[in-house]
Parts: sequence; structure tokens; C-alpha cells
Amino acid sequence: MKLGSLKSPHSRDGELCVISKDLKTAVKATHISANLREALENWKDKEASLQKIYADLNAGSVADSFPVKEGDFHSALPRTWLFADGSAFIYHIKLVRMARKAALPETLETVPLMYQGECGQFLAPTEDIPQRDFSHGTDFEGEVGVITDFVPMGVTPEEALKCIRLFVLINDVSLRGLIPEELAQGFGFFQSKPASALSPFAVTADELGSGWKEGRIHFPLQVNYNGQFFGKANASAMHFHFGQLIAHAAKTRNLAAGTVIGSGTVSNESHENGSSCLAEKRMIEQIETGSIKTPFMKSGDTIEIQMLDDKGQNIFGRIFQKVKAV
Amino acid sequence: MKLGSLKSPHSRDGELCVISKDLKTAVKATHISANLREALENWKDKEASLQKIYADLNAGSVADSFPVKEGDFHSALPRTWLFADGSAFIYHIKLVRMARKAALPETLETVPLMYQGECGQFLAPTEDIPQRDFSHGTDFEGEVGVITDFVPMGVTPEEALKCIRLFVLINDVSLRGLIPEELAQGFGFFQSKPASALSPFAVTADELGSGWKEGRIHFPLQVNYNGQFFGKANASAMHFHFGQLIAHAAKTRNLAAGTVIGSGTVSNESHENGSSCLAEKRMIEQIETGSIKTPFMKSGDTIEIQMLDDKGQNIFGRIFQKVKAV
Repeated sequence: MKLGSLKSPHSRDGELCVISKDLKTAVKATHISANLREALENWKDKEASLQKIYADLNAGSVADSFPVKEGDFHSALPRTWLFADGSAFIYHIKLVRMARKAALPETLETVPLMYQGECGQFLAPTEDIPQRDFSHGTDFEGEVGVITDFVPMGVTPEEALKCIRLFVLINDVSLRGLIPEELAQGFGFFQSKPASALSPFAVTADELGSGWKEGRIHFPLQVNYNGQFFGKANASAMHFHFGQLIAHAAKTRNLAAGTVIGSGTVSNESHENGSSCLAEKRMIEQIETGSIKTPFMKSGDTIEIQMLDDKGQNIFGRIFQKVKAV
Repeated sequence: MKLGSLKSPHSRDGELCVISKDLKTAVKATHISANLREALENWKDKEASLQKIYADLNAGSVADSFPVKEGDFHSALPRTWLFADGSAFIYHIKLVRMARKAALPETLETVPLMYQGECGQFLAPTEDIPQRDFSHGTDFEGEVGVITDFVPMGVTPEEALKCIRLFVLINDVSLRGLIPEELAQGFGFFQSKPASALSPFAVTADELGSGWKEGRIHFPLQVNYNGQFFGKANASAMHFHFGQLIAHAAKTRNLAAGTVIGSGTVSNESHENGSSCLAEKRMIEQIETGSIKTPFMKSGDTIEIQMLDDKGQNIFGRIFQKVKAV
């Protein structure tokens, strides 16, 4: 099943829609739940009704369906209660810490890195990335993510996997120029992690087929930058799987239904697969050629993030954002 | 005006109530707005109607008012989109960093410290603090906080002060035993900052009278621990005022209406005023006597946090929580 949130003048949560598998048509499901956030809070009562609509929509037997227009949709979940963003691709951590000459944590392979990100107002998937200051070093980070049901404090990684309800893509906007000073203060990221965007559509595990196994999504994340190939790193390379990330987040708190858990920047050791953020590409340039060639994003630069399944079907729709000076 | 959120089986946001100045009676205001979160999103349309109810309630001319029972109320705002917790009392920073032998940030007096805390499910003000592991070093932190309207990115500190709608108290629960390892990873607090509690009631600036000036609340925060005096540090000692904290939070993002900005642990250099957290008391013991006597919280320990105005009237109701092993 694929779900989205139609922009609405009446609610910042948007209106819940069911989206066809081919992403071409949609139908409002507001009679089931006003919005996706509330549907997630009553998932066991709502899922079957939504799945029924999805089956009918794919069969072409829904009367009031309408064509999907990209700009009409919010991030799949326009706002929520917690965005806990992990950093589960070890190669990404190695490259970015090398870039800012920071030591690797001693617990690199045993304890996930995680911070709490802005989730009160995700950018829409085609909304401009506002850039106030070029020195902030605007970067994108292509990630995969899961949306959970309520998760009880102290959950095990195995039980945590059963709390996953939906999958999304994420563009975790990062301001590289602000990170060193902010981390030097000791409190972690804040200003350096502004509003991010989710993919327009969130999907259930069955949409990933055999691509969902071992707590990881086994498809490449397709990243284009300014219309050119930039990366196709496979999301299967997560060192910690999503159950481990959820359990880490829930060690000392319950997680509200609708919690978004991010994978961190998708990253592969094979440089042939490119990168999912500029910081990595810059560091690889430094390693391979001795100097950095790629600047951070400037006004007008575009980033496109999407993922195809094993039949070539676009799974989540695309994140397509442009940097705009404000 | 004083506002609260009555617990409800129908909504995790609770039901919006207006509370009398003496905190003795309440009346539902759900015909104005279902809950406080939504009232904050439409504040300019709702404030006058709520103020009218408040005036009538205080005059004793509201028919369906009912007596306030402490356990019936959530945190004033039971859940919201962002809890940005500052650390604006420099003396607190000095003591806790001394305690964990961490260096002071170079920007101590020029750039606020701030992290993003759990806000998807605040504990109720009389809800037990769940403790899974005694080695986590459970501590309370008495804070003052503000709740903002929508705040545009890049706001100045002076403009930010005009975005404050309500004031609250906060018990920012902290797990001291988890902090050193977590900060060593470089991503800041996560597991070490579990769910916190707000005071049962949130109030408008006029309730603080002359106690609200220069962006700071000029009253002592009364803290009792296990029924004994623990602290009466004056909240006026904030190094950064709330306008500066809000502007810091909004440097690279808009803040959603309902954002809670915390002051950090209220702390005075005069040891006569006691402390608002155990970590400070422990460090003061270390300095003054060469050894730490006070342990962190154990099952059954209680913490009470409240504030009186210059006429001796309790402003926000009380936070009164007990640690419970789970």
C-alpha cells in the first residue's frame, strides 16, 4: 500500500490519500482518517480499510480518483512527534569525520549514532531548500527511513522490527559549515540540521517485496544532482538494521506512533556507486586527487532522490528540491 | 490567564481548560479549541475568547466550572512539535562540566547551548518518572520555559520576545550516567534525555506581572526533594534571555506554533539558594567538602517544583513526581 498527504488549506497535517502502485492516481481516504498522523495512531483499526481502497484503486474501480500531481503533495507525513535520525552507514561516518578531522567514536560498530531532528514541519518533497547564508555549507543527505507505531521503552531490536508500519525516503538537509562549531559546544546538532523533506509517499513493507529483509532495504538509492548522476548506493549496507536503531531510540523513552527513524546517509564503500551527500564526494575527491573540487550547494542547485523496486517501479515518488536564497 | 489540559480518553492532546487564578477551579474551553496545541496554532483568533472565560471564572460567574484535582491534568501542553532546551544559566554549565571533567565551550557566554528534547509525549506533572536502571543516574532539572507562536527563521532576539504566548515550568529528567558516553560519540544527548514533564498550567505574561522583564522571569524556582527544601534559585539569573534562546533555535528553521523553549536548569552562584538538580548539589559537595554525599534518584524519591508570584500565589501549579522502577 502507498499513502500520501494532499496539501490542504485547512490542516498542516494534509489530507490522507491512497496512491496507486504506479503513482499515477490517488484518492482521498479522509473518511477513514483525516490524516496519516492520526491513521498511524489507530493503525490496527485503519490498515485494512486503507488496503481495501488501495486494491480498488489499483484495479481502476474507484470513482473519485484523480491524477497525482507532484506539487500537490506534502511530505508523506507532513509533521510528527519525533524524528530520530541514526547514522547507520559506517563508511559515511568514516568519510565525514575524516573531512572535519574528528576522531571516530570508540563505539563506532557497537552503539548507533543518533540525534533528534526537526519534525514539526518537514519541507514538502518539491519545496525549495531555504539558504540564508552560503557559508552554512548547504548539503543534502539521501536516506531511507521507517515510520513506527507506538514503541514501548526497552523494546528489543527483534520486537522493534514488528513496530515498523511504513517506509519513506528522506532528504536530511545539513549545514556542514555550522557542524564543527556546534559539535564543539558538546550538545550535538541543532542549527546545522534544519527542516528536512520526506518522499511524497510512504509505503508498507509488501511494496518492497524481497527488497525488505534483515531489517534493511535492499535497493539502491538513486541520487541525481543538478540533473546528473550522483549516487546509487545500496541501502542494504546499513551496519545497524532498523530494529537496532528503533531499540536504541526507545532505550529510555516510549516512542509515539508516527515516529520517523532515519538510516543516516546511504553510503557504500564502492566509489563506483557514487554518494548520497556532497560531504562524502568532497572527501573522496580529497583522498583520490588531493584536493576538493565540488562546492556545497548554491542557489538554484537541484537534488533528486528516488528508489526503484526490482521491476523498475518507482516506490516512493521523488524528492526533487532546489536551493533558494532567502 | 491560566490554561491547562484535562486528561481525556479520547485525545492524547487532552481537553483545553481555563483555570482560575487561585488554581482552585477549572472550566472546559473545548468549544473555543479542542486542545491547547490547536489553540496555539490559531492564537490570535482564540486568545480573547479564552481571556473572557478566565475573567468570568475568576468572578465566579461560570456555571459549569469544577474543582481542580491535581491528577486530572496533563502537562499544560501534553505533546508538541519541538522542545528546544537551552542551557542559559552559566553557573549550571560550569558545575556540571566540572562534575564530568569536561571543558567549557569557548563560546560559553556568546552562543547558547541548546539541544532538541522529547516532546511527543511529555510525562504528566504528577506522573511517575520511570527508571529502568539505577546506573543511569536519574536526575531532575527544574527549569522555566516559554511556549511560542509560529516563529519565522532568522528572527531577531527582540522580535522573538513578541512570539512568546505562554510560560511553563519544566522538569527536564536527565540520566547523568548516560551523558558522558553519549556526548563522547559526538551527536549530543538522546538516551540521556528521556521524557520530561511540564507544569500542569501554562500562563500568559500578565500573570507574572513585574516578574516578567528583560526576557527573564524574576521569581525563585522552589524545589523540594523528598519533602525537604532543595532550592530556591532565582530564574532571573539567565545569562541569555528567552528572546536570545528563541532566535538561536530559529536561526536556520521556522519554529512551529507550540514550540517549547526551556531555560536549562535554574542556577544561582549563591549556594544559599540551593540547586535545581542533583548534579549541581553533588558538585558543590565535592567542592566544599571534598566528597559527594548525595546519590542520584532511587525508586520512591520525590521531586516537587513550583513558583510563587510576589503575592505568594502559586503561578503554574506544581510538578510533583516520584521515581518508579520499571
